[in-house]
Amino acid sequence: MKLLRYGPVGQEKPGILDQSGAIRDLSGVIADVDGSILGPDGLAKLAKLDLASLPLVSGNPRIGPCVGSVSKMICCGLNYSDHAAETGSPIPKEPILFAKAVSAICGPNDDVVIPRGSEKTDWEVELGIVIGTRASYVDEADALNYVAGYCVVNDVSERAYQIERGGQWTKGKSADTFGPIGPYVVTKDEITDVQNLEMFLDVCGTRRQTGNTGTMVFGVAHIVHYISQFMTLMPGDVIATGTPPGVGMGMKPPQFLKAGDSMRLGIAGLGEQNQKVVAWSR
Amino acid sequence: MKLLRYGPVGQEKPGILDQSGAIRDLSGVIADVDGSILGPDGLAKLAKLDLASLPLVSGNPRIGPCVGSVSKMICCGLNYSDHAAETGSPIPKEPILFAKAVSAICGPNDDVVIPRGSEKTDWEVELGIVIGTRASYVDEADALNYVAGYCVVNDVSERAYQIERGGQWTKGKSADTFGPIGPYVVTKDEITDVQNLEMFLDVCGTRRQTGNTGTMVFGVAHIVHYISQFMTLMPGDVIATGTPPGVGMGMKPPQFLKAGDSMRLGIAGLGEQNQKVVAWSR
Repeated sequence: MKLLRYGPVGQEKPGILDQSGAIRDLSGVIADVDGSILGPDGLAKLAKLDLASLPLVSGNPRIGPCVGSVSKMICCGLNYSDHAAETGSPIPKEPILFAKAVSAICGPNDDVVIPRGSEKTDWEVELGIVIGTRASYVDEADALNYVAGYCVVNDVSERAYQIERGGQWTKGKSADTFGPIGPYVVTKDEITDVQNLEMFLDVCGTRRQTGNTGTMVFGVAHIVHYISQFMTLMPGDVIATGTPPGVGMGMKPPQFLKAGDSMRLGIAGLGEQNQKVVAWSR
Repeated sequence: MKLLRYGPVGQEKPGILDQSGAIRDLSGVIADVDGSILGPDGLAKLAKLDLASLPLVSGNPRIGPCVGSVSKMICCGLNYSDHAAETGSPIPKEPILFAKAVSAICGPNDDVVIPRGSEKTDWEVELGIVIGTRASYVDEADALNYVAGYCVVNDVSERAYQIERGGQWTKGKSADTFGPIGPYVVTKDEITDVQNLEMFLDVCGTRRQTGNTGTMVFGVAHIVHYISQFMTLMPGDVIATGTPPGVGMGMKPPQFLKAGDSMRLGIAGLGEQNQKVVAWSR
């Protein structure tokens, strides 16, 4: 299933893609695409629906963040060996974790706002893991049982704030609109091998990132297991699993986003995001 | 006003302390003590209540975290110059920020659980700021207008996870029960000078931390202003403002919490917390 949320900011309704790629309204069935319906029971109920019987959503609504009421967004740093190399960092011995403020989460095609005064706003296509079941101290062998599905994430990053302002990365990852997620939560049954998904990101039509989840240093199951040793993952929580090479910071000379730029990014089977980059204004 | 939440975990009701120190039930007036009622209008309505007309809460209920539905908890590191010195760190030139997972938040007197295998669980009494109004790019001179009130925080920390496991502090700050907040949100009108509050923390009856918010490197108004340059603070968000000297990591030799220990901590005007330290069990 491809679950999504559509409508104006803060008023999103739940929806599901039908076989033709059209959006069907789920608001008669569930209140939202959130942690309350992402567990195995909730997804099993949705899987039994006759999509053709659900109202067809007309027009071309805004697509919201694919999960509502995300309680936390945890990100892995330097989780592709070739990306670690381009930033001049060693390959980590264990996952590096940081948090992105949930207030940064936005829809997959919403404008990305360059923070006031920022000169180093950068892009990062990433595989997102959406948690379905509360996960605390889970074994790696069981870890995928706690996963509802996957989504595309753009882990937008301000490199000066991240690296030059005290060393804790949260500061450079949490501006409003720095967390586009979606367009869909694609339930894991639709993904044959999550460690073999092509991914890309274009800036203004030029390919900047090309990667495959097969070159992650730490795979999805290990990441879920690992995070669950340090904190409890809740249904609806989102994990961004790190970015492949090709970020602006790694270019020679470095290149960063400016107002008027566009980003297009996607992962095989998970859909695409398209963002316009805009300047901050009150 | 001293606003609080009482009752079993996950079923807390809103309450308010009356002049005698008894809890009055607010559940006929508001659904919860959360971001929806912490703005100036919400607090003004509560201030007009005749507390004697509200139901008296009988017995001795559990006190829950003083704010419900916290969307993020941001912490300042090394914000007391004498604490920076005891950890061997330089005084920061600007606030160091990190996030504590909101799943770590618990009641002020709930058991603190040592994570599985942890050997370096430590204490940190801190002044908590509770946000009342959405804050993005606010000036320092206006910053206190965005604050609803204050609370006691124990920023429980696992030092090996924080420092020896990749460098991003979130990992050592986010275990379940690592975020006792409360007992109350004390509205800011009750605090004459937030930069002159005595604070203390005892472990097993021995005084370990003694401090005063007057020795913060960066004060409350600056912190709110500063964080709002990097992310949007939402009503109900909690900021932990750093700890004064006396943490276990700074002792010679270092001392850490073990099952059976007790912690008692408080800040003048904001009440006290009392925690039992227990071992992890499934």
